[in-house]
Amino acid sequence: MRILMIGAHGTIGSAVAADLAQRHDVVRAGRSRGDVRVDLTDYASVREMYAQVGPLDAVVTTAGELHFGPLAQTTPEQFAYGLQSKLMGQVNAVLAGQSLLRDGGSFTLTSGIVGEEQIRDGSNAATVNSALEGFVRAAATELLRGVRINIVSPTLVDASAEAYGPYFPGFLPVPLKQVVQAYRRSVEGVQNGRRITVW
Amino acid sequence: MRILMIGAHGTIGSAVAADLAQRHDVVRAGRSRGDVRVDLTDYASVREMYAQVGPLDAVVTTAGELHFGPLAQTTPEQFAYGLQSKLMGQVNAVLAGQSLLRDGGSFTLTSGIVGEEQIRDGSNAATVNSALEGFVRAAATELLRGVRINIVSPTLVDASAEAYGPYFPGFLPVPLKQVVQAYRRSVEGVQNGRRITVW
Repeated sequence: MRILMIGAHGTIGSAVAADLAQRHDVVRAGRSRGDVRVDLTDYASVREMYAQVGPLDAVVTTAGELHFGPLAQTTPEQFAYGLQSKLMGQVNAVLAGQSLLRDGGSFTLTSGIVGEEQIRDGSNAATVNSALEGFVRAAATELLRGVRINIVSPTLVDASAEAYGPYFPGFLPVPLKQVVQAYRRSVEGVQNGRRITVW
Repeated sequence: MRILMIGAHGTIGSAVAADLAQRHDVVRAGRSRGDVRVDLTDYASVREMYAQVGPLDAVVTTAGELHFGPLAQTTPEQFAYGLQSKLMGQVNAVLAGQSLLRDGGSFTLTSGIVGEEQIRDGSNAATVNSALEGFVRAAATELLRGVRINIVSPTLVDASAEAYGPYFPGFLPVPLKQVVQAYRRSVEGVQNGRRITVW
């Protein structure tokens, strides 16, 4: 398969790209590095990315940022930032790519455990992750030509536990390689419209 | 209680306002009519609304619009419209109002069955409704001074069945008065962080 990995230089994205590259032709996209550069919040940039990359069987996104902070101090601009970055960014990748994937292709998006299990300062993350999961359930009923869509919801991964562990008290980190397998299942498997949880 | 009803002139909002007004002091807000005018997508307008209304015990919102249409033809602008209107509009009402409600007050937002059960052309609605439900789960852990927050998820109501029934094949309409009771339960009850489904 020819696979576009968007967010290919993050902790999860780089591990997923390395795994998929053992069996497939992987094109790495990132905001500041990669085979192709993209700003997912800019639809023209997303379209330009697809034009540069050419025919694809699968698109995987692990990209997007969120706002973390107490609700009492959150501004509408901070809240909208997560909507534009992690939510609309991944939606843009689907809207622009849906007609370009080969028949039977797939999208794999990324949410996160905070959509379901609350952490302090996590209201923007909860909103965006839940939104993406609702999008995937619905988009699976709409995509044409056998194109599938799934979303991986990881919890804290071991590779990030030192940096982010304090924000996740009582959350057992999972091995990064286990998260990688969830993406593989979505790309190489038959699932459609599914949230694949890794917790 | 003194209750602000935002979206007080829609099918559900007017029925909820009429019910609450039997026992409470209800201030009706709307985009083009009501005791106070508000554009929920404009944060300055939301703040101005609260300044005009004064002290409150509860805020209920049934306002906000969505994009309905095939995913294959959906533009990012159309998709973002629902995020700005129904999602960010209701979030704005919470962000701006959270410090103004009296101790032990409450917010009651509105999602809808399409967050969980798909209908044709409903990917924007699924995204926005799911987002709001995630927001409420998280916001309930963050609001201070005993302020509660819940969300009502109605299915098709009998009063709208003639207009919207064709979009909801196999969905049994519920009586509007049953939906009204869900809002009453949120406002007058003890629930917090709950999605109150009416289906």
